[in-house]
Formats: sequence, structure tokens, C-alpha cells
Amino acid sequence: MPDKPSITVCDATLRDGSHAYSHQITLEQVRTYAAASEAAGFSFLEVGHGNGLGASSLQVGESLVPEGDMLRAAKACLRRTKLSVHVIPGFATIQRDIAGALEAGVELFRVGCHCTEADITQRHIGHVRSVGREAWGVLMMSHMASKDVLLEEAKKMQSYGAQGIVLMDSAGAYFPADVTEKIGLLAGRLDVPVGFHAHDNLGLSIANSLAALEAGARIIDGTAKGFGAGAGNAPLELLAAVLRQRGYPTSLDFYKALDVAEVAAKLFAGSLPSASGITIVSGLAGVFSGFAKPVQRAATQLGVDPRDVFFELGRRKVVGGQEDIILEVANELARRKNGANPGAPAP
Amino acid sequence: MPDKPSITVCDATLRDGSHAYSHQITLEQVRTYAAASEAAGFSFLEVGHGNGLGASSLQVGESLVPEGDMLRAAKACLRRTKLSVHVIPGFATIQRDIAGALEAGVELFRVGCHCTEADITQRHIGHVRSVGREAWGVLMMSHMASKDVLLEEAKKMQSYGAQGIVLMDSAGAYFPADVTEKIGLLAGRLDVPVGFHAHDNLGLSIANSLAALEAGARIIDGTAKGFGAGAGNAPLELLAAVLRQRGYPTSLDFYKALDVAEVAAKLFAGSLPSASGITIVSGLAGVFSGFAKPVQRAATQLGVDPRDVFFELGRRKVVGGQEDIILEVANELARRKNGANPGAPAP
Repeated sequence: MPDKPSITVCDATLRDGSHAYSHQITLEQVRTYAAASEAAGFSFLEVGHGNGLGASSLQVGESLVPEGDMLRAAKACLRRTKLSVHVIPGFATIQRDIAGALEAGVELFRVGCHCTEADITQRHIGHVRSVGREAWGVLMMSHMASKDVLLEEAKKMQSYGAQGIVLMDSAGAYFPADVTEKIGLLAGRLDVPVGFHAHDNLGLSIANSLAALEAGARIIDGTAKGFGAGAGNAPLELLAAVLRQRGYPTSLDFYKALDVAEVAAKLFAGSLPSASGITIVSGLAGVFSGFAKPVQRAATQLGVDPRDVFFELGRRKVVGGQEDIILEVANELARRKNGANPGAPAP
Repeated sequence: MPDKPSITVCDATLRDGSHAYSHQITLEQVRTYAAASEAAGFSFLEVGHGNGLGASSLQVGESLVPEGDMLRAAKACLRRTKLSVHVIPGFATIQRDIAGALEAGVELFRVGCHCTEADITQRHIGHVRSVGREAWGVLMMSHMASKDVLLEEAKKMQSYGAQGIVLMDSAGAYFPADVTEKIGLLAGRLDVPVGFHAHDNLGLSIANSLAALEAGARIIDGTAKGFGAGAGNAPLELLAAVLRQRGYPTSLDFYKALDVAEVAAKLFAGSLPSASGITIVSGLAGVFSGFAKPVQRAATQLGVDPRDVFFELGRRKVVGGQEDIILEVANELARRKNGANPGAPAP
């Protein structure tokens, strides 16, 4: 099968999985999992807080272990597999967080932002390149922008020095045809490799990853057993299987890539993601999966259906950072339900 | 969305799930689940042993509860939702099993066989039609036959009186393009509605179901939380979501269709299917998922990798009923591994 291009498979288990584990991943878990990832031959292992470098905080959740310790623990287990981090300007500072990650031996910085705000990544991408390390651009919640807007934003990141562009389906809202359209345009029009990062809210993470590969993506993200935010990600063990079946060359040892699922199942038993009515509606509504817990809390408190809250958040096109709107929406639904505001206009 | 056709959604939870529960489903579980299925508005609820009417036996596993009791318990909970059964000639006799099911009020008989053996369904389909009940034809392990062979077999079933034809992906081996090709041909050339029954071994059950709908399928099977053989089926809660998002009319109450997942999660906790290295390789090799347990036993006993056993079974194109070959293959792999037979030709 010499006609298919080689695919870079990125293992985000110890970063996206942080969301599924309330950021309580231990150093022992980092070491055990990193060794399994290295053995499987993934190209990159991403490690850290779910929201990336410097994000550990009361606001979005504190990591159990300091970031530098996690990165050094992982690095010590890696040889062929390179260490990468997720970087969101706003959480991550250049002076403190990127400097610390460089010292810890991080080889790839994936600098992300909301899909229409590429401008904010310029300084971070530029800095990483200026010190001679690899930088990619990541467009999050990419279902909220048209393919033409995404191309424009990706081109900005490329002009800042990004050596790869990843579209994230942060809400798990894509259908395969959407992926084909957007990845196809970017892969055809950018000078750097394009990647895709799936979430499984609608059960389409593997199909969407496959659509991305067929449309020209050369980078694909996954997590062992789908261990990630909301309904989780494209399971690496399934990605390994479809890549093999479709004849894409990779750096993977196939059986050891299957084995990471069992390693993750043991390490994170009881915290593996699973589709629920909440994560499904979150995907249909196109709302960031990380909202699931606060939405459930607000809905219980006010006696409304959390699924109605998600649909309303979707109508308002809410994005990460706007968690305060959750309570406002839940309150309004409760008022409508209780008839306390009968004169309110229909939605 | 008036241009999309109405879809018949079949709930196979209390039949395919029997495989995942070693056929130990209780009457109380039947009643609780059937009430949830009725509330959700599924068109049919299939009930019984995993291998269908009359299959309870030492050979393939004994049901905890007599078939007639399960069917009557379910029937008592159903009003709009119709009761259906899976029928494999060889297990199911007309005199004993179909007669009993008719007495219990079964409304649809889905008569299945290996995908190249439609002939054996003639008498059963004919009998069901002669007593005025509905009969469909089901082609199992359909990935093993070409689209032209499937069309020929389906036409036979149609000539026997089948009022619908369902292709089963019993091994979870299909990719969406395969489904598009086969369902597309059948939907275009048969006079009766065509359906699809997915398994999730490669994580593609929802994508394959979607491909089937887009290619003209009007019937779709699923199970709550994917509760079924091997890696399980297309989860009904996810089917409900994609049907809604794509604008297909159905008889479903959307939120109550999501709720069946939670009902199943509680009723069958600890037995819900999940992809593993074994089920994934089973899908890649195109072997019936129900082989997972005997393959694991044989592999452990002989000290070989169960995944190697599955790949070899796939090369030999083994089908259900040929379980004796499992031990033979495991033995041969053990001999090769231990060098006891160094002169054997390379595979």
C-alpha cells in the first residue's frame, strides 16, 4: 500500500483525559501510561491540565500535580515518542509556562484558541519557533466557523510560523461530510500538514477521523479508550485499527497500540467517558462538552431538564469561558416552566 | 424537512443484549426495559435468546427464563411498539417455536440465515405470511458476500413473501463505503423496505447506520447503550440523535429515546459492551463477535495471543456454527510458536 501517506498519530490521553479525571492524574499514572504510549509508538504524547499549560486554577480546576513534575515524569519515559503540550494564550504565559515546559524538555507546542481568534496565538507561536522548537496551531470549537473563515484563521497561524494546523471538534458536533468539506479545503490550501481532533458526542469520532484522513489530514489525535472531556475522544485503539485496515503507514506497533486501551481502562477505571443524554444533546447543540458538569448542577438546583439548558446554550452560541450564562439560562427556563413570567416572548 | 422518508427504528436490546448477558435476562428486566422502549416510541421491540426463537440450549447457552414467558411479559408492556422475534431456521421450528410465538402475540418474525443461504428461510417466511403475520428476511454476516450475491439472496427472500430485508453486519467489519454500496443496490432494486443492523467493533456503528439511511435504508436496528454481542450494536440513543439532526421523521419521543440508555445502564450494569483488543481484531478479521469468549478460552489454555487466533479464523472465513475450528487454530499457532513443527509451510 505505497500510495497512502504516512500519518502522525498524537496521543492526547494525559491532557484531554485530565478533564475526565477532574485534573487529579497522579505521577504514577503519568509514568505507567507514558511507558505504554512509547511502546505503542505514538508520534507525540500530550501531557498536562485539560485546558493546557498554566491553566490549573480554582476557576477551571486545579491539577493534583504541578505541571513541571508531570512533564518531567512523562519525558523520562519517552524515547521515540515526543512530548507535547496544549497551550492556550490567556492561560499560558511565555515567561512562566512556556519557559518551564522548554526546561522540562517539551518538543511540540500546540497553540490553540477559539476558531475565530487566531491573532492571539501569534506571540506564543513566534516565541516557540524563535527558540527552535516545533509549534502547531489549533483551532478549537471549529464547528462554529465556516470553512472559509477557518482557512483564513489557519493561514494566519501558518504565517506566524505554525508547522501544522489542527481542527478540533470540541463539541463533538461534526458529521463526516462537515469534516470532509473543512479538512479538504485546508489540506488543499495550506503549506503545512493538517490534523483533526475528534470528540465522540454523536458516536462519530472514528468516522469523522476517517473522513479527515480521506480528505487529506496527515495528523490525527486520539486518546486511549477515548479518555477525554465530555463523551471523550476518538479511541486510539480504534484509530490504530482503521488506519491499519485502510493501509495508512504509521509509526505504530499495532498490538501495543491496542494495549493502551487496557492500560487506560485499569489506570482510570470508573472515569472513562460514556455517551449519555447530556453529552449527546451537548453535541447536537454544538456546546463545549466541558460544560456538562456545571449544566447538570444548575439544572438540578433549579428543577429544569439539563438537556433543555444545553439546547438553549446552543441557540445562544455560547463558548468556553461563558460559564456564567449557564445559570442565567437555567433560571429563565425555570421561570418559563413555573409560569412566573407568562408575558415573556416565545423563544 | 418534508423531503426525508420516515424511518422504522427497531429496538433489539432484549435479543442482541442476551448475548452480552449470557442469556440470563430476567422477567423483571424484560418488563422494566419494555416499558421504557414503549415510552420511547420504537417501532418494534425484539425479545428472546440471542440466537433467536428456540435457540436456548446447552450448545449456544440456555436462557434463564422460558421464551414464552419472556415474550408474554414484554407483550403486556407494549401498546404502540410491536413485538418481534429473531428466527433462525435450524434453531426455530415452525410447529413448536413459531406456534408458541404466535400465541404469545408476536407481530413480526425476522427470519435470518447466513447471507448466502436464503433458501433455508422459505418455509418459515411462508408460514408466517400464511397465518397473516409480518415476516422480514435477515441476511447475517453480510460482509462476506458481494453486493450482487446479497441482492440475489434478498430477492429470494422477497419471493418467499418477506416484507422487509435487513442486512446484518454481524462481525462489525463494515466501513461506511461498503454499506453505501450494498444498501444502495438493495434499496434501489427490491420492492420492500431495506434495513441495516450494525455492530460497533470498529467504532463505526453510527456512521454505518447513517450511511445505510443515506443509501436508502428505511429500517434501522439498534440497542440501548449498544447492549449486544461483541462490541455491541449501534446505540439507540445515538441513532435517535443523528436521525433527529439529519431530519428523518420517526415515531420516537426524543428525550425518552435518550432515556433508554440510562434504563439499560442501570438494568445491565457491568455487562455493557466496550471495545477491546479482541473485539477490534474480531471486526478487522470479519469474524462473528460471538466467538470472543471461546477464542479467549482457547488462547489462554494454549498460551497464544487471542488476536492471532482471530486473524487466522478470518483468513479461514469461519462462520457461526464452526466453533470447533477455534481450538484447531489455537493449537496450530501454539505448535508454530513452540517450534514443534519447524518444517510447516509459512502461512
